[in-house]
Amino acid sequence: MGSTQRLPNAIDLSHHLNTHSKSRNASPLKDILAFMSYEGMISLAGGLPHPSLFPFQSTSISTYPSSVVLDAAGMPKVEQDVLNVTITKEEQTGQMISLAKALQYGSGLGDTSLREWARSFTDTVFGPAYQDFEILLNSGNTDGWCKVVRLLCEPGDFVICEQHTYPSAQALWIPMGCQAIPVRMDGQGIIPEELERLMENWEVLHPKTKRPHLLYLVPVGSNPTGVTMLGARRKAIYDACVKFDIIICEDDPYSFLQYPDYQTGTTDLVYEAVTPNVYKASLAPSFLAYDYQGRVIRLDTFSKTLAPGNRLGYFVANPMFTERLTRATEVETQAPSGWSQAIIGNLLSSWGTAGYLQWLSTLRLQYQRRRDWMCQAIASSFDLRPASSFDLPGAEGLIAFAKGSFSSSAIPIFSFMPPTGGMFIWARLNFASSPRFAEIQSDSSCKDPEQAFSDEIWIKLAKALVLVTPGSYYTPWEGLERTTTKEMGREEGIGYFRLAFSLTTKEEMEIGIERMAMVLNSSWGISSGYEK
Amino acid sequence: MGSTQRLPNAIDLSHHLNTHSKSRNASPLKDILAFMSYEGMISLAGGLPHPSLFPFQSTSISTYPSSVVLDAAGMPKVEQDVLNVTITKEEQTGQMISLAKALQYGSGLGDTSLREWARSFTDTVFGPAYQDFEILLNSGNTDGWCKVVRLLCEPGDFVICEQHTYPSAQALWIPMGCQAIPVRMDGQGIIPEELERLMENWEVLHPKTKRPHLLYLVPVGSNPTGVTMLGARRKAIYDACVKFDIIICEDDPYSFLQYPDYQTGTTDLVYEAVTPNVYKASLAPSFLAYDYQGRVIRLDTFSKTLAPGNRLGYFVANPMFTERLTRATEVETQAPSGWSQAIIGNLLSSWGTAGYLQWLSTLRLQYQRRRDWMCQAIASSFDLRPASSFDLPGAEGLIAFAKGSFSSSAIPIFSFMPPTGGMFIWARLNFASSPRFAEIQSDSSCKDPEQAFSDEIWIKLAKALVLVTPGSYYTPWEGLERTTTKEMGREEGIGYFRLAFSLTTKEEMEIGIERMAMVLNSSWGISSGYEK
Repeated sequence: MGSTQRLPNAIDLSHHLNTHSKSRNASPLKDILAFMSYEGMISLAGGLPHPSLFPFQSTSISTYPSSVVLDAAGMPKVEQDVLNVTITKEEQTGQMISLAKALQYGSGLGDTSLREWARSFTDTVFGPAYQDFEILLNSGNTDGWCKVVRLLCEPGDFVICEQHTYPSAQALWIPMGCQAIPVRMDGQGIIPEELERLMENWEVLHPKTKRPHLLYLVPVGSNPTGVTMLGARRKAIYDACVKFDIIICEDDPYSFLQYPDYQTGTTDLVYEAVTPNVYKASLAPSFLAYDYQGRVIRLDTFSKTLAPGNRLGYFVANPMFTERLTRATEVETQAPSGWSQAIIGNLLSSWGTAGYLQWLSTLRLQYQRRRDWMCQAIASSFDLRPASSFDLPGAEGLIAFAKGSFSSSAIPIFSFMPPTGGMFIWARLNFASSPRFAEIQSDSSCKDPEQAFSDEIWIKLAKALVLVTPGSYYTPWEGLERTTTKEMGREEGIGYFRLAFSLTTKEEMEIGIERMAMVLNSSWGISSGYEK
Repeated sequence: MGSTQRLPNAIDLSHHLNTHSKSRNASPLKDILAFMSYEGMISLAGGLPHPSLFPFQSTSISTYPSSVVLDAAGMPKVEQDVLNVTITKEEQTGQMISLAKALQYGSGLGDTSLREWARSFTDTVFGPAYQDFEILLNSGNTDGWCKVVRLLCEPGDFVICEQHTYPSAQALWIPMGCQAIPVRMDGQGIIPEELERLMENWEVLHPKTKRPHLLYLVPVGSNPTGVTMLGARRKAIYDACVKFDIIICEDDPYSFLQYPDYQTGTTDLVYEAVTPNVYKASLAPSFLAYDYQGRVIRLDTFSKTLAPGNRLGYFVANPMFTERLTRATEVETQAPSGWSQAIIGNLLSSWGTAGYLQWLSTLRLQYQRRRDWMCQAIASSFDLRPASSFDLPGAEGLIAFAKGSFSSSAIPIFSFMPPTGGMFIWARLNFASSPRFAEIQSDSSCKDPEQAFSDEIWIKLAKALVLVTPGSYYTPWEGLERTTTKEMGREEGIGYFRLAFSLTTKEEMEIGIERMAMVLNSSWGISSGYEK
């Protein structure tokens, strides 16, 4: 990593572009730009407002220093622990981006210094396996993914995705007339053999349709499943994508929120940030590390690491893709907010790359702590057993039984894998063991018993004052003909809920999970153990 | 204005939506939001990062006060003339938007207070003629127009536009497979009778095509023509749009940069800002003022008034359009940058609406001064005569002759209307009077003599170290079969250049126009008068 000089350049992947993105013209202003640098040139060409007429003189941001120590609530331990970053209107030594520059119209690419920082950071942390990768700023991964769909997808296309996928990603391809091709997952994400099987049998499974050529995934702390994909799995997926000529979009907002395994029963862990290098070494590799052809479009963002409202992120991709994405950016959005660019750019240059890694090491510790709180809250309200010790098909990680009810004949209510990344626990509910579900199933007028039971529980939870996200939100859209659990060939007698551990306090989590236990126990016909 | 209570609501215009925008689903999270407000609810549903983990504590912005007096260079007259706006992480009395709120995920709508401010400002300044108009924030007019095209246009659609139109607007509809239907303009913009004629004869002129239903225009200081449309003209256009069921997109970045007529020969004008009320009364009405049906989508922005890098603007539109645009915003971009929202919102609430109008009154004065500099520079390098005093077909405003060459047989080189808004002078070049053009025209192998001569002059200008923007950049795209001046039925023997007066200094303008005079004189076979 860090020295890509002897690596190959990206191969030609331009056959993946859709008609729309192929037909974009380069901005005619290019001709003008070629002359702009002439000594003594007077330009009456560009319609830029005069920067002296921007009313902003300077801005000063008070932030945590990168070495900040956060207390259990996530606040800096010492009140005075503040770093002031001042950004002046005019250029100044040591300032990455001046306000005059950041607040003026720029090229669609975004600020050059910030892009150089992101390129060097990507090279250092993720070490792409090809040389000519480029950075293009965007307004966060929502904007990034929207531009990827519009770069590559034609109406009628199939988009390969995880078995449970991010709904806002789908909301883009559905109105375009595209549909999902979900691939089965295990505790490490998409199963490579399943992807290969799909592609090998495409013509048989989906006669007279275009072969899919785009794989969308959230490889760290996946939303909603919380799954993180490790190196060997990624390599196998990447190789399959080479074999079947598939572009991989790595939507990676949680890449810096990775945690060690959850230690069952531990409540007195010491949460201490490791050094930048130890932290960096602890991260799962990006798909970029295997990408010797330039077929990965990585979406990186500051939303989860510095704040979502920055609306600032970047593409890492081959130069052919970034050129087409730049053309789209110029006319669709322009570069991200100048305030965001100036503030994030100058904060990063003030912290330095090691400082940013130090901050990330502290930050992920806070989310690890929250992950632990949530797992502990579940352990307090349910009896947890390792899935391996109990024969429940498809269950991984831990199985939750009603508190005090565990015996060899006990009823497993749900299973989950304590996540090693991201913000979510994905509870796999064992509807099949609920008498109420059997009742619903026996009603022949009910078309989708899993959905009906899930809705019933969800409403009961809401009335008991705990909100979770229904698993059906994350069901890939396979077209109007396949909408029920059965039609989509999804697991019978299984449902899912997503529990976020990112925002609530420890106490709220405990109360929330207690409420959930009450509702689930009663829905499974069990009187709550801890109420006795 | 200001009291819309007795006005009608918007009519149903949902038949204008394209298939794509009709098929967007409301976010399923709505169900969750309905429960969110329950007393005591614990939400494990939303995946929001914890605001204590945003490293930003506060920000302070030094800006001009709204009452600032700017010197001739556009800088505040007194150095100490600075207003400090501090924005804290947590909510505080008198603060429009806190950082914790601005930097968190929000709804796609943008901050409520800022939207309320924009609604009240629009009501006060532009007085829409219907009651239920709504505000939706966007990331500036580029983002806004992109979303309008994707809301209303189907591939193959015709988009009605000005005879010379903004190229980045076109760059959106061309790759979508749409094409322009330009309408002839005069010194006040699109001619209503021409629009009516087009629509009345549509089936004859364009058999078997869908009737156009979207009109795009820049009604103040139009880019590139500099033309501003006044009230009576707007009403006539609006009435035609009602008659032919057309949606009007009013792209209005220059709405606050309107100037009194240029006073020929005056060089000692005093530039003094008028009061907010006098300023407001001086503005041309928006199309909103005539919009009793809700068929206008107004794009307003802070790009030209506070700085382009804010990437912050807003739609003013009927609730059916804003609802569909919100669905698009949620999945395509999310709300604009939180920094931009917080900084602009708090600046505006600190200045107050009267203060903002005061600032605009000062700002437009600076651009008026630049408009005057540019016109004076042209007057120094050319002999100017009123177009009305000379028989040159199509010429309006002033005609420029080579310096010292004016006589009854003098050769008119170009004509222009000193603009009363925006940032551009649109020079209409009288190619027909150039011997060199006649030479090019007589070459039968040259398919487009106007374009060839324009290119030749443009290169000569660039080599003489003055850049202007070629008029052809603004030619509406009418499909692959109609690309030459002749094929498009454009004026024979005429070419255009756009000259921006927004950024260069007075001295640079003078030198630039001198250089232009030299090149044009020589291209018209005239030795420069002032060189004698």
